[in-house]
Amino acid sequence: MNRSEPADTPLGDGFHVYDTTLRDGAQREGIAYSVADKLTVARLLDELGVGFVEGGWPGALPKDTEFFQRATSGELPLKHAALVAFGSTRKAGATADRDKQVRALLDSRAPVVTLVAKSDRRHIERALGVDVDTACAMVRDTVSFLVGEGRRVFLDAEHFFDGYAYDPDTALRVLTAAGEGGADVVVLCDTNGGQLPLQLAATVEEVGARTGLRLGIHCQDDTSCAVANTIAAVQSGATHVQCTANGYGERAGNADLFAVLGNLVTKLEMDVLPPGGAAELTRVSHALAEMANIAPDAHQAYVGASAFAHKAGLHASAIKVDPLLYNHIDPPVVGNDMRVLVTEMAGRASLELKGRELGVDLTERPEALTSAVDRVKTLESQGWSFEAADASLELMLRRVIDSEGEPVSGEGFLPEGPFELESYRVVLDHRPDGEVISEATVKVQVSGERVIATAEGNGPVHALDAALRKALSPYLEWLDSVDLTDYKVRILTPGAETPSMQGHPGTDAVTRVLIESTDGEKEWTTVGVHENIVEASWMALCDALVHKSMRVSPGSDGHRGT
Amino acid sequence: MNRSEPADTPLGDGFHVYDTTLRDGAQREGIAYSVADKLTVARLLDELGVGFVEGGWPGALPKDTEFFQRATSGELPLKHAALVAFGSTRKAGATADRDKQVRALLDSRAPVVTLVAKSDRRHIERALGVDVDTACAMVRDTVSFLVGEGRRVFLDAEHFFDGYAYDPDTALRVLTAAGEGGADVVVLCDTNGGQLPLQLAATVEEVGARTGLRLGIHCQDDTSCAVANTIAAVQSGATHVQCTANGYGERAGNADLFAVLGNLVTKLEMDVLPPGGAAELTRVSHALAEMANIAPDAHQAYVGASAFAHKAGLHASAIKVDPLLYNHIDPPVVGNDMRVLVTEMAGRASLELKGRELGVDLTERPEALTSAVDRVKTLESQGWSFEAADASLELMLRRVIDSEGEPVSGEGFLPEGPFELESYRVVLDHRPDGEVISEATVKVQVSGERVIATAEGNGPVHALDAALRKALSPYLEWLDSVDLTDYKVRILTPGAETPSMQGHPGTDAVTRVLIESTDGEKEWTTVGVHENIVEASWMALCDALVHKSMRVSPGSDGHRGT
Repeated sequence: MNRSEPADTPLGDGFHVYDTTLRDGAQREGIAYSVADKLTVARLLDELGVGFVEGGWPGALPKDTEFFQRATSGELPLKHAALVAFGSTRKAGATADRDKQVRALLDSRAPVVTLVAKSDRRHIERALGVDVDTACAMVRDTVSFLVGEGRRVFLDAEHFFDGYAYDPDTALRVLTAAGEGGADVVVLCDTNGGQLPLQLAATVEEVGARTGLRLGIHCQDDTSCAVANTIAAVQSGATHVQCTANGYGERAGNADLFAVLGNLVTKLEMDVLPPGGAAELTRVSHALAEMANIAPDAHQAYVGASAFAHKAGLHASAIKVDPLLYNHIDPPVVGNDMRVLVTEMAGRASLELKGRELGVDLTERPEALTSAVDRVKTLESQGWSFEAADASLELMLRRVIDSEGEPVSGEGFLPEGPFELESYRVVLDHRPDGEVISEATVKVQVSGERVIATAEGNGPVHALDAALRKALSPYLEWLDSVDLTDYKVRILTPGAETPSMQGHPGTDAVTRVLIESTDGEKEWTTVGVHENIVEASWMALCDALVHKSMRVSPGSDGHRGT
Repeated sequence: MNRSEPADTPLGDGFHVYDTTLRDGAQREGIAYSVADKLTVARLLDELGVGFVEGGWPGALPKDTEFFQRATSGELPLKHAALVAFGSTRKAGATADRDKQVRALLDSRAPVVTLVAKSDRRHIERALGVDVDTACAMVRDTVSFLVGEGRRVFLDAEHFFDGYAYDPDTALRVLTAAGEGGADVVVLCDTNGGQLPLQLAATVEEVGARTGLRLGIHCQDDTSCAVANTIAAVQSGATHVQCTANGYGERAGNADLFAVLGNLVTKLEMDVLPPGGAAELTRVSHALAEMANIAPDAHQAYVGASAFAHKAGLHASAIKVDPLLYNHIDPPVVGNDMRVLVTEMAGRASLELKGRELGVDLTERPEALTSAVDRVKTLESQGWSFEAADASLELMLRRVIDSEGEPVSGEGFLPEGPFELESYRVVLDHRPDGEVISEATVKVQVSGERVIATAEGNGPVHALDAALRKALSPYLEWLDSVDLTDYKVRILTPGAETPSMQGHPGTDAVTRVLIESTDGEKEWTTVGVHENIVEASWMALCDALVHKSMRVSPGSDGHRGT
């Protein structure tokens, strides 16, 4: 725990990957980490190979004080990272050794301390209410006190870029004061997030030349340029980057750690992570989204589920020639995969490619491929969409193969599954007292028996899900491990495309339901389409369970696997 | 419709804001615009003041062919924008005038055509299978043919940056061929999205100097730098930017139109929009998210609901001193707010203003205004949103006035309407033969009588609507004139905000339903929120009818008006 440098990274202390998810990232609305969450987040960042993990602001927030206490008492063994405590400089009237807040930084036992200080004269004079000399003394004193106590100290120069534009002399004096006190790095912060890369690059270069200090960079994303600004700063001499996981942070957020690392490693070819670290980017990004309780962004650069997904038929046929001509990097380098999307815009080539990805090889089965393409086209014209529903697509392809030679028809396309539906009934009652009750009854065949079950739920789909689980769980051991994690509804309005349509185009439109499921290890998505939203949900629900049953016992009908 | 230049923007044809949401944006998974959607998207972009709206690829996609047919037949009167058709150059073996695809571009009647052409030698040789001379001839011929037919032509040079790095000579020859054919702008495309701003800026400057052609820029976001790259290109001489609404697009998406415009207008101080255009950025961004059926990103730069929201205690108190010290721009400049709570309406001033707009004057009723603000806050915390549901908001305000002095509570907020619900029941039967039946029974009081009616429908909401109409239509003459024109469902996941939530966050989330109605003259939108989708729909349905009844006989309970 006494480490104050990154361990096992090829560039060592020469380049700092510094994460502030636990402090600045937690400013994002809706994020509320528990102490246990914080420990897990720090562990995940350490696994990735981040060099510095900022844990919080001891003394200011009780949770953060507790985090440091537990982290430094053996609960957070770090392989690569040094632990950092964040705090402000001493108050104007006190000496550093008597300042309560500065003492809390020492008490945290973190080997590294990052101090925040104002570097914009307007903020110093109007928000802090002191003159520039006093502000510089506060910085110098606090840094040298902490250095004297054996800590490594970095300085976050708040509002640096706005301050430098307004009064460069003041901004530079604050940096110099930190250097004089013994700070190792002065971090230029674009606190309001208003910078653009070309100007920011010029400023970083100029400040480096004028101060001779080691520079860091901390960018907010208010111009949508935080990642670009961070990279531009590195190209202009900064050797310390402060980021947050997935760009979490106040307002538009911070520079996304994963995009910054992706760019540093694959574009600038800088060995800033330990061997194997880059290949963990996708996994760790998703795990950190989980910890923040925020759905991962499918369109996030490098690590998003769609970051290497191709939809256009124009590309899909050419991708077979050479995938690297159509991807800016090889996806596995960052632990991601290339995906081919099946849509109305694509043809045989992409369905074949997609089948291979799902483990259904259609290359030697041209007739099955033809009938699969026809089937996809027909279903898509009815409102189905398999772009996001790989699990349903796989079931459809398997069924096409099973029935090779015969046309596949009908509305559903369940292959032999672990159960068979006889019927269901859902009753919704809005009672005179205003209470609304949803009740569902299912009749199913499972393991050769006929089972009837009834359950209530918050709404019709929830009730149906509950009844189905009640009926099946005595027979299917794995059922309890399967949870629905997301449920999306889209109303497709044929009325909008068919001007002649009469009556009520709103309520009799076709409904498409997407259900995302997990068993704690994997996630899969299924789709259902019907004019009745409950029936559409039922289709997606059933596909979700059949998909899982095939994984439990491939090739069988599932329940024998238990 | 013959306009080929932006109208009413201070910079005129000197700078092109070019939107490709309808073509490249539609490559994003899950986006599937109908022709009616496309017309609406184009109108919204035109309201903002975009200079060029690319409508699609006529000839390649039937929907796009229909879009151009309707757009050029009077359905899309444009105030600011020129309409653009996208397509590829002639095939290797044919002449331009005989090429079916090129003819489809002419047939679209769009005054501007953007042609896409490969400019990376590897793509020319391996994907296209021709030599560089042939590829250049294809570009030159097609451009000059279309120019000869009176079209303005732009050239999208696909994979330009990768191609220029690999073989600059080939990449420049393709641009030159386009210029020789008469193309007005050659657009450098970072198709694989792998560029970083500093290098990209240097390349744009160099290409401008070497070719002397007018340059455009088109960036994908695979390094999370699309916006930064676009701005860096403008600073290096590009005068034509291609973007998509909210950055929609394949993989990590495209450069976000709203962030690019925010940066151009507020950072580079370029008058690229008509007067008043910038203040529409937030509204149009959210409306386009709605059209794409994608939840707006609260953390989007400039236009996100949280883009100017401050959480940090450190800042929040200091903000009172001078808000501009803590925001990179003044939020109203882009139509956004600093204290955006759950919505823009949470403040007294805006609710008062909105009330006046809806004909409910709260200016002389400070207590009613206070209780209306409280009511909106409470409802929004439960998932209600009035941004798009003026009719429901008006009913809520009227009810607050009616009950002045008393607190308004309960889940619904129906003022005295033309009918009163006693109860309803909906039964959904999936029969053993696979047929699915939806049946609803309603019991209502109307005109002093108790009426019971039962009807079937395609789904639960349709059945409920049918039963309600059956019960009420003998008493309410105007009912037959009211049709539902749109029905939207959004699942709100409290799981994302409530980490402790167990079980099935998917199916027991809260559902918000928006219903758009028309009586042939006016349209109005109502909202309902409930954990049960059918109950949420019922709320919105009832509001829709009560709203109409007030219009029939203002101030009364409606049915006496018939």
